[in-house]
Amino acid sequence: MIIVTKKSSKDEDVERLKQKIEELGLKAHISKGSRRTIIGVIGDIDKKIEKIDPVAVFSLDKAVDSVHRVSKPYKLASRENKDYDTIIDVKGIKIGGENFTMMAGPCSVENREQMLTTATGIKKCSAHILRGGAFKPRTSPYTFQGLGEEGLKLLKEAGEKTNMPIVTEVMNPKDLDVVLKYADILQIGARNIQNFSLLKLVGQTDKPVLLKRGMATTIQEFLMSAEYVMSEGNADVILCERGIRTFETATRNTLDISAVPVLKKETHLPVIIDPSHAAGKREYVPALARAAIAAGADGLLIEVHYNPAIAVSDAAQQLTIEEFCELMEDIKKIAAVVGKVIQ
Amino acid sequence: MIIVTKKSSKDEDVERLKQKIEELGLKAHISKGSRRTIIGVIGDIDKKIEKIDPVAVFSLDKAVDSVHRVSKPYKLASRENKDYDTIIDVKGIKIGGENFTMMAGPCSVENREQMLTTATGIKKCSAHILRGGAFKPRTSPYTFQGLGEEGLKLLKEAGEKTNMPIVTEVMNPKDLDVVLKYADILQIGARNIQNFSLLKLVGQTDKPVLLKRGMATTIQEFLMSAEYVMSEGNADVILCERGIRTFETATRNTLDISAVPVLKKETHLPVIIDPSHAAGKREYVPALARAAIAAGADGLLIEVHYNPAIAVSDAAQQLTIEEFCELMEDIKKIAAVVGKVIQ
Amino acid sequence: MIIVTKKSSKDEDVERLKQKIEELGLKAHISKGSRRTIIGVIGDIDKKIEKIDPVAVFSLDKAVDSVHRVSKPYKLASRENKDYDTIIDVKGIKIGGENFTMMAGPCSVENREQMLTTATGIKKCSAHILRGGAFKPRTSPYTFQGLGEEGLKLLKEAGEKTNMPIVTEVMNPKDLDVVLKYADILQIGARNIQNFSLLKLVGQTDKPVLLKRGMATTIQEFLMSAEYVMSEGNADVILCERGIRTFETATRNTLDISAVPVLKKETHLPVIIDPSHAAGKREYVPALARAAIAAGADGLLIEVHYNPAIAVSDAAQQLTIEEFCELMEDIKKIAAVVGKVIQ
Amino acid sequence: MIIVTKKSSKDEDVERLKQKIEELGLKAHISKGSRRTIIGVIGDIDKKIEKIDPVAVFSLDKAVDSVHRVSKPYKLASRENKDYDTIIDVKGIKIGGENFTMMAGPCSVENREQMLTTATGIKKCSAHILRGGAFKPRTSPYTFQGLGEEGLKLLKEAGEKTNMPIVTEVMNPKDLDVVLKYADILQIGARNIQNFSLLKLVGQTDKPVLLKRGMATTIQEFLMSAEYVMSEGNADVILCERGIRTFETATRNTLDISAVPVLKKETHLPVIIDPSHAAGKREYVPALARAAIAAGADGLLIEVHYNPAIAVSDAAQQLTIEEFCELMEDIKKIAAVVGKVIQ
Repeated sequence: MIIVTKKSSKDEDVERLKQKIEELGLKAHISKGSRRTIIGVIGDIDKKIEKIDPVAVFSLDKAVDSVHRVSKPYKLASRENKDYDTIIDVKGIKIGGENFTMMAGPCSVENREQMLTTATGIKKCSAHILRGGAFKPRTSPYTFQGLGEEGLKLLKEAGEKTNMPIVTEVMNPKDLDVVLKYADILQIGARNIQNFSLLKLVGQTDKPVLLKRGMATTIQEFLMSAEYVMSEGNADVILCERGIRTFETATRNTLDISAVPVLKKETHLPVIIDPSHAAGKREYVPALARAAIAAGADGLLIEVHYNPAIAVSDAAQQLTIEEFCELMEDIKKIAAVVGKVIQ
Repeated sequence: MIIVTKKSSKDEDVERLKQKIEELGLKAHISKGSRRTIIGVIGDIDKKIEKIDPVAVFSLDKAVDSVHRVSKPYKLASRENKDYDTIIDVKGIKIGGENFTMMAGPCSVENREQMLTTATGIKKCSAHILRGGAFKPRTSPYTFQGLGEEGLKLLKEAGEKTNMPIVTEVMNPKDLDVVLKYADILQIGARNIQNFSLLKLVGQTDKPVLLKRGMATTIQEFLMSAEYVMSEGNADVILCERGIRTFETATRNTLDISAVPVLKKETHLPVIIDPSHAAGKREYVPALARAAIAAGADGLLIEVHYNPAIAVSDAAQQLTIEEFCELMEDIKKIAAVVGKVIQ
Repeated sequence: MIIVTKKSSKDEDVERLKQKIEELGLKAHISKGSRRTIIGVIGDIDKKIEKIDPVAVFSLDKAVDSVHRVSKPYKLASRENKDYDTIIDVKGIKIGGENFTMMAGPCSVENREQMLTTATGIKKCSAHILRGGAFKPRTSPYTFQGLGEEGLKLLKEAGEKTNMPIVTEVMNPKDLDVVLKYADILQIGARNIQNFSLLKLVGQTDKPVLLKRGMATTIQEFLMSAEYVMSEGNADVILCERGIRTFETATRNTLDISAVPVLKKETHLPVIIDPSHAAGKREYVPALARAAIAAGADGLLIEVHYNPAIAVSDAAQQLTIEEFCELMEDIKKIAAVVGKVIQ
Repeated sequence: MIIVTKKSSKDEDVERLKQKIEELGLKAHISKGSRRTIIGVIGDIDKKIEKIDPVAVFSLDKAVDSVHRVSKPYKLASRENKDYDTIIDVKGIKIGGENFTMMAGPCSVENREQMLTTATGIKKCSAHILRGGAFKPRTSPYTFQGLGEEGLKLLKEAGEKTNMPIVTEVMNPKDLDVVLKYADILQIGARNIQNFSLLKLVGQTDKPVLLKRGMATTIQEFLMSAEYVMSEGNADVILCERGIRTFETATRNTLDISAVPVLKKETHLPVIIDPSHAAGKREYVPALARAAIAAGADGLLIEVHYNPAIAVSDAAQQLTIEEFCELMEDIKKIAAVVGKVIQ
């Protein structure tokens, strides 16, 4: 931590700050500038000061202009602590490292025909993992909320018939047990990215967790949410960028494609992109999907429906099976350019 | 709902759209323009089309340029459905209408001395409701997470000794029962504004719900979250604006002061402001608090600590008791100007 | 400036950085932490390193994790360099300090009747300065672009008849001479906040400059734009917050009310609020105007039209004269509460 | 234009609106819904109503809930008016259509050695157009402002020696003549995207204009700025996305990669990406550049410096010549996948 004093600060102010630092069991290193003094605070702040927020505490001092935190608040998720890529194995499908993984399927599980037709269609075009929502977070209480366990059964059945592991969202702690019975990967939705109770719970399971970045979540906060899961003992976290909220309304959200290289630098966890929720419109999805693999992502999560026109949710953004297969041709070619392997 | 066709659309396209609308039990009203056709869709879309998203479905049609929703998606929360202000009574303290209500107290409940000293101090300066967090949503898993039920007991004790109802956050469905034992108002935090499972649960209780707007929540989504609570039967929802996330970093968040007149126009529910989380710095809180009442808010939720320098969380933004009392003097005078009554 | 090294940095890295700092004529103060080294760079960076960006240069070093600038980039505008409020006198009307100044008038100058009727109407209700646009920045090339010099004459005439100084926008360097012939205050619009050529030019005049914050301008950049004007010799800059661009669409822009206390802390320059462009809708303007004075602003810039229904621009956000007069009643009462004087 | 009435509107309200519409020489088409009335306004609003903003005027009516504009405000830039891609020829280098064009060079022109070394280096790796700033928009008045005409001469010389056309920014109308003497493409910087005086001026030249999107410019506003240039007679506009301002601070700006497919759908103009200003850090530039071509962009504008460590501006984000050449290998391979030709 670095403390910068105000121009008006005096020697006695610096002395007082130094004492405060030492009382906390830390060391102060003082650099007097021409106009301000800079105090380096040395020691493991998080260990020494369990219950207080050191940045806030020193910010309050009348002689202090600003306080800068130097050490990163995430530890288990940081590449500084693990310098090789995490590779997660889900029933033989590998996520992370040199692998590029395709997760696809409808927004909501609707019925058996929809699931089987869609799953069979995408499997033929190299999809690895089947997605589908059984518990749906909907902005309005008056719209379709998902089929619940019935949906999980249909998703599982389609996954088994096509030999694909399944990923599905868990929204509510009380549904975790039932979701665990079926899911191979637990998805935490964007709206629950800072639902810390839920993060802790999935951190106590042994299933990989696919964590979707929230619409207003910074990359640092995103990694802190991964840290919540990991600090409970579950190291298998997949990070998913799906668009952030900005002033632009031409797309549903703004895909933060830069998050790919930034996350790859900061963390060893796999990073995938969901172009469907970012775009909000089917016609923009292929461009964003190609951008994702070109930027270095480890996979894609794409909404595909065998007949989007009758979809109960997100109809406008789901690809048809044909569109998905066409996209896969491009993805395979770009994978070769960027050194990714598609199983 | 209004459907606007592309310039290239033909008569047969319009005919096809009309049929689709009529198949859904709705009526189509067609206006042919010089370059485009506008189709008004008449009927209760939400009732007729239970499971599909009509905007999305028509967006998919190749002849359609854009689809506009006309009716508001919130109903119970809308002023169109109830044209007088909701006034909530919490143990004799009134919230809404002409009343201006002061909710104050520390960020986290820390210990008995802190709670009693702070509660006594603010009560003397006309605080009405005591706040304090026992279950704390923290960005980092390594920081103080709240005292839990022990904290609720201390909060309750301080409330009883100073004759103030208490408001406290519930984060986790499994904690709801214990929070209900103590709390007079249930707070839903900004990070849980779209935790729909939690919203439904508090909607099934008979306690008023203080709903904090999320950092990236539009006003329409905010009202939809209120609608979730209300659609379960609980009409006593208090809306709290606490800053949204923007590009500006001089403050922790950007207080959306315009949300006050916008919400007062759209809904009959009480609207309060939390200037502490918006500012993130104590020195800016009084200016924002004065702005809130001047803009027409129904109350304030302010963090106050008898000694912020030793606070375990949000130290930088909590007012001292003296600062709170000084602020209250201004608030009372502005209340008189804008026609608000402070009990 | 503070340089923080990576965890992997070695003694030789620190030595190399130290040498680089000393070559630039600056001093390095080194604090070795348990995991990283913090280097305080002492000396006047801006003086020593004319042509390079020191933050960028050191960011490039392979051993560097982050670089923090400590000294503020604005000097003339900073309260650290002038600790009393700037008060600008425009033909006897004072702006800044304890004064609260009302600037009002139509969006565009349209014709003599409009200007005289509006000016007479608002003058009766204590407006101090008359606004009106003669050169209009319009998003579309196909809409009304202003009356030009003809408009300036009408504005001037209305100002003289009602004994009010006038403020009007200059968009184009080549129009500066003609605007200078008429205007008492030069307005720089939000879209030109970083039109540095124009800022330098108005900095060379002896007329006060009203600087409107851009839609994506941080407070620091806003002060840097003021610095551009001041560094050319013109110290009379008035800062105007008029809403920033965020994800919220219920209002035209999001009024950053917190900018008032933040700017009052950082600078000695007067700070005013334009609630009309922030709101974009007439019905929200009074609430924002009241919030502005309550938050400590030094004045308001409000769009008023004697008949908004026939206005050629911004029709939706202009107050009627009656609405303006009604608002002024509230403003006067709140001024008394916050210690402001209305001449 | 579509007018939606309030639920409380009456027949006489609708009649009044109808009359107002007809007075303007337009036709009203009325659809009565169960709760509201929808009025389609038919006719060319922009032609009929020269001076007024029709959306604003009708928004003011007490019976109106909302007004929706249907026709797009841009015409010359719209793909609806020209359904094949604009291809711009700059001394034999083609921009747009199936061509992928590489523009590269240093942020600022600094000296002859820098320009020649950099130009020669990038030319060997297939750069087509040389960039370099002679007039620099700098946030601070105290930093390097560019070499002016001296810089233009050095840029021109380097361009001629390496047989590359040059692109450089014009900031100030008074510099236009001198810039025209040297430049092959005129760049309008992000900060001047709504400097309408400047847009009109470059619209009157016969040089192609490279228009950089502003940090808070919507895609619609971006196209309206192109329309300003085109409406003056200059049809050769190149659109450049360079990052928008969001809450995320891990990168200098947030590259809006979705702007590529959105713009390609809306307009026939070429769309290029500047990954350097979006990223702000050299290490993220290659990933964003690869994403750009994969998403369908028509070219890149990249900052390259033969020795970034001594660059006078943007040191942190400029690639070395080696990094540029390495990136070009990937670009060529992805071009083949997406059907782009690199001359």
